[in-house]
Amino acid sequence: MSAEQAYQDLITRTKNVSLLHSCEGVLGWDERTYMPKAGSKFRADQLGLLSVLAHEKFTDPKIGELLSELEQSDYMKDATSVEAVNIRETRHSYDKATKPPSDLVEALTKTTTLAQGEWVTARANNDFKSFLPWLEKVVELSKQKAEAYGYEDEPYDSLLDDYEPGAKTKEIVEVFANLRTELVTLLEKIQNAPNKPNVSIVERKYDVELQRIFGGSVAQAMGFSFDEGRLDVTTHPFCSGMGPGDTRITTRYNPNRVNDALFGIMHEAGHALYEMGIDKETHFGTPMGNSTSLGIHESQSRMWENQVGRSKSFWKYFFPQAQRMFKDTLGDVTVDEFYGAINDVAPSYIRVEADEATYNLHILLRSELERGLMTGEIKPVNIREEWNDRFKKYFGMGVDKDSNGCLQDVHWSAGLFGYFPTYTLGNLYSAQFFNKAKTDLGDVDAQFESGDYIQIREWLRTNIHQHGARYRATDLVKVVTGDALDHKPLIAYMNEKYGEIYGF
Amino acid sequence: MSAEQAYQDLITRTKNVSLLHSCEGVLGWDERTYMPKAGSKFRADQLGLLSVLAHEKFTDPKIGELLSELEQSDYMKDATSVEAVNIRETRHSYDKATKPPSDLVEALTKTTTLAQGEWVTARANNDFKSFLPWLEKVVELSKQKAEAYGYEDEPYDSLLDDYEPGAKTKEIVEVFANLRTELVTLLEKIQNAPNKPNVSIVERKYDVELQRIFGGSVAQAMGFSFDEGRLDVTTHPFCSGMGPGDTRITTRYNPNRVNDALFGIMHEAGHALYEMGIDKETHFGTPMGNSTSLGIHESQSRMWENQVGRSKSFWKYFFPQAQRMFKDTLGDVTVDEFYGAINDVAPSYIRVEADEATYNLHILLRSELERGLMTGEIKPVNIREEWNDRFKKYFGMGVDKDSNGCLQDVHWSAGLFGYFPTYTLGNLYSAQFFNKAKTDLGDVDAQFESGDYIQIREWLRTNIHQHGARYRATDLVKVVTGDALDHKPLIAYMNEKYGEIYGF
Repeated sequence: MSAEQAYQDLITRTKNVSLLHSCEGVLGWDERTYMPKAGSKFRADQLGLLSVLAHEKFTDPKIGELLSELEQSDYMKDATSVEAVNIRETRHSYDKATKPPSDLVEALTKTTTLAQGEWVTARANNDFKSFLPWLEKVVELSKQKAEAYGYEDEPYDSLLDDYEPGAKTKEIVEVFANLRTELVTLLEKIQNAPNKPNVSIVERKYDVELQRIFGGSVAQAMGFSFDEGRLDVTTHPFCSGMGPGDTRITTRYNPNRVNDALFGIMHEAGHALYEMGIDKETHFGTPMGNSTSLGIHESQSRMWENQVGRSKSFWKYFFPQAQRMFKDTLGDVTVDEFYGAINDVAPSYIRVEADEATYNLHILLRSELERGLMTGEIKPVNIREEWNDRFKKYFGMGVDKDSNGCLQDVHWSAGLFGYFPTYTLGNLYSAQFFNKAKTDLGDVDAQFESGDYIQIREWLRTNIHQHGARYRATDLVKVVTGDALDHKPLIAYMNEKYGEIYGF
Repeated sequence: MSAEQAYQDLITRTKNVSLLHSCEGVLGWDERTYMPKAGSKFRADQLGLLSVLAHEKFTDPKIGELLSELEQSDYMKDATSVEAVNIRETRHSYDKATKPPSDLVEALTKTTTLAQGEWVTARANNDFKSFLPWLEKVVELSKQKAEAYGYEDEPYDSLLDDYEPGAKTKEIVEVFANLRTELVTLLEKIQNAPNKPNVSIVERKYDVELQRIFGGSVAQAMGFSFDEGRLDVTTHPFCSGMGPGDTRITTRYNPNRVNDALFGIMHEAGHALYEMGIDKETHFGTPMGNSTSLGIHESQSRMWENQVGRSKSFWKYFFPQAQRMFKDTLGDVTVDEFYGAINDVAPSYIRVEADEATYNLHILLRSELERGLMTGEIKPVNIREEWNDRFKKYFGMGVDKDSNGCLQDVHWSAGLFGYFPTYTLGNLYSAQFFNKAKTDLGDVDAQFESGDYIQIREWLRTNIHQHGARYRATDLVKVVTGDALDHKPLIAYMNEKYGEIYGF
């Protein structure tokens, strides 16, 4: 077989696997949006079969043989060519899919399914002790998975790599530690500052149907195409890039709070623009048709949500429209007051409700703990104490109950060790990318103020989206900005913004 | 391998095939309801793969071996046992899936895909001649398919059998001929009758949102469960029984005509009740978890649409509600006037717009022609003339253009020879079943008038739905009513109803 034939065979196979996953995507979207409630048991059977078929096809030893052959071919000479990227990243996924022994995979699936049920009960009862044995089991199995994957430096690397391929714990840890110091200082400055935004403005009555229309018009202004996508309602918002021409986002509407849906839509639309910006017509079913990491994905959602959506120039354009639409609610409010209210900072227990400034502290705390669990420096039995001690130090307040503390997130019960850091990586990358975009595009504030969000969308498409998985995240940030991962751009952005709002 | 093991193996295989088809069902529903329009090309790729995988799994020679073994087993001693039915009907589908050679299947797929495109153009241009070569090709390939399937009496049997397993052309032809004579007489009586309903009542303004609410409340009264189903909007209404706990219907709303959505919803909900009444929790993925034929399926939709929905007793209950809801539209209308208007009969060109009385004449005409095409007594080149001659005889008016005549339906371009008769079979069966239900349930009119549609729903579930594919349609009608397929109950029902409305 020639290298050309081997490559075509490989691509045909990965395309079929991706098509099966994309069918799971449609069924999963339907399950969360419109499926009648009596259909859920049957839906699990459908998804189970698709998942098994996709796994069987992807772990076929023939794919390993094709990869071995192709890795010796001329395709690899240019490391960023389409073919080399597809071979490299398919190898990465293939190894991750085939290395853990099947009894370990089965044990993980079973244990995490049960553990999630136990976590729901434990959280409802604020009962860490009843969850502890399950945490211990999942930690132990996750360590075994890390060993099965293999690693150079430390076990946590190989788990992090599931979500952020190629990321190294030791590089991240240093940046995160610097960020933490700065964020704790920033929070103190904010809390001691003379100005206080009137946060009650965002907690007035906002008609849900008008929120839907306003949010849709913002998404459209961002360049989200409703010919190629949808916006629906779900309990837990998400973005699903199903394939070429089909990227869907969801949100939830709170009639007494405007932030949730508005910034939720901008966040998910940011994810969607990444999916829409990848050349899936050409590359669907191969790594070049995929996003490169969760961290980079999050950098896109967070940039739109925060650097764009929570900027003053954005609201100079959109506030008059919001005021006309929600006239009883916003008639007596100025754009500066509204801008202050949507940027209010206050320490809080629950990560998913956190503001832009404190959000990363929640992540840093979790990232430190889960790395400790994997090195063995922290034992599951001590997680509660470790959590509460750190929370006091970083947020300046004590945890009142476990559902507001170490039991709040589903991730650990689901075995998702290595996932949390991608949230903060996204925020760090977003600040680095945004700085570079400003350098390239000139006065982005003037663009935002005039309703032009297409220049920055195009910049993101050209510099990030279109590359698919060509560059690993750590390389992409260097290719785009010239710099490695760095905490300083995010901190500089926050200090400037909050300094102006809070007057420090 | 024991017979038990062989049976379990067979069931596991057919269940997986059905699961894949049910995934196609979800993707197909999504395509027609909510999919963004740019997603259609990719959706075809997804559906194509699922279809190929299901076909590969179902035509696996191992299934043939298991069937051969099981056909010799004790399972077959009781012909209506769950196991015997599943073996018998799986054999039927397996033979139909494996007998036609793959080059014929491929030629049919390619030709009908192209022919449908040509048909769209030909219909738009009223140009039968440009469609003729395609009709000739599809007829020729369909004859080859009939030969590949094999038959006892005549080729058309084996095509009809795709939709109505076990039905025999010669039995149907006789009943259809009798029906035609009676319907032509009935239409003449109606046209010469003294009374004329005021059809303009149904052609007033009916608010679409209110139509949706009213239609939903009718479906609910019929026993359609919105916990196990949905009602959405599509250009072409359909019912999709996806699996246990998930049966969805669609309709389309015409703001200037109340019949379309109202009786459309009752029609699709009738199909849905059949799907919901099959014990899919136990039998999904096997013939016992499927409907037995399209004719029986249509008997359910048509009974709800016509014998129930177009009855006077139904409107004695629902008209006051309709009048309250559409108060500007129906304020000056009596229940008798409304009942007359929804039962208006008038010959018309287009089958899908036909009233209850003339609908079957459209089908009988098509059934005669397509049987003639298969026996060779009618040549494709003569179809236009044959159609127009018969139309004049049956409807008493000449066809003005081909888009109102032989080019109106997609079926022949799609190679669906044998499908049309199932519409009229459904109407015949519905009248036979309804007579028996009235005998068993007593005064159904009193039940309908008091808003009780659950007794008849239960009767249908017990006598028809729960059997799945246990009985072939021709046997089922005998098991339920004691009689074979017969045109007289339908004609008696129509003569009585229209005699009263039109005064003859």
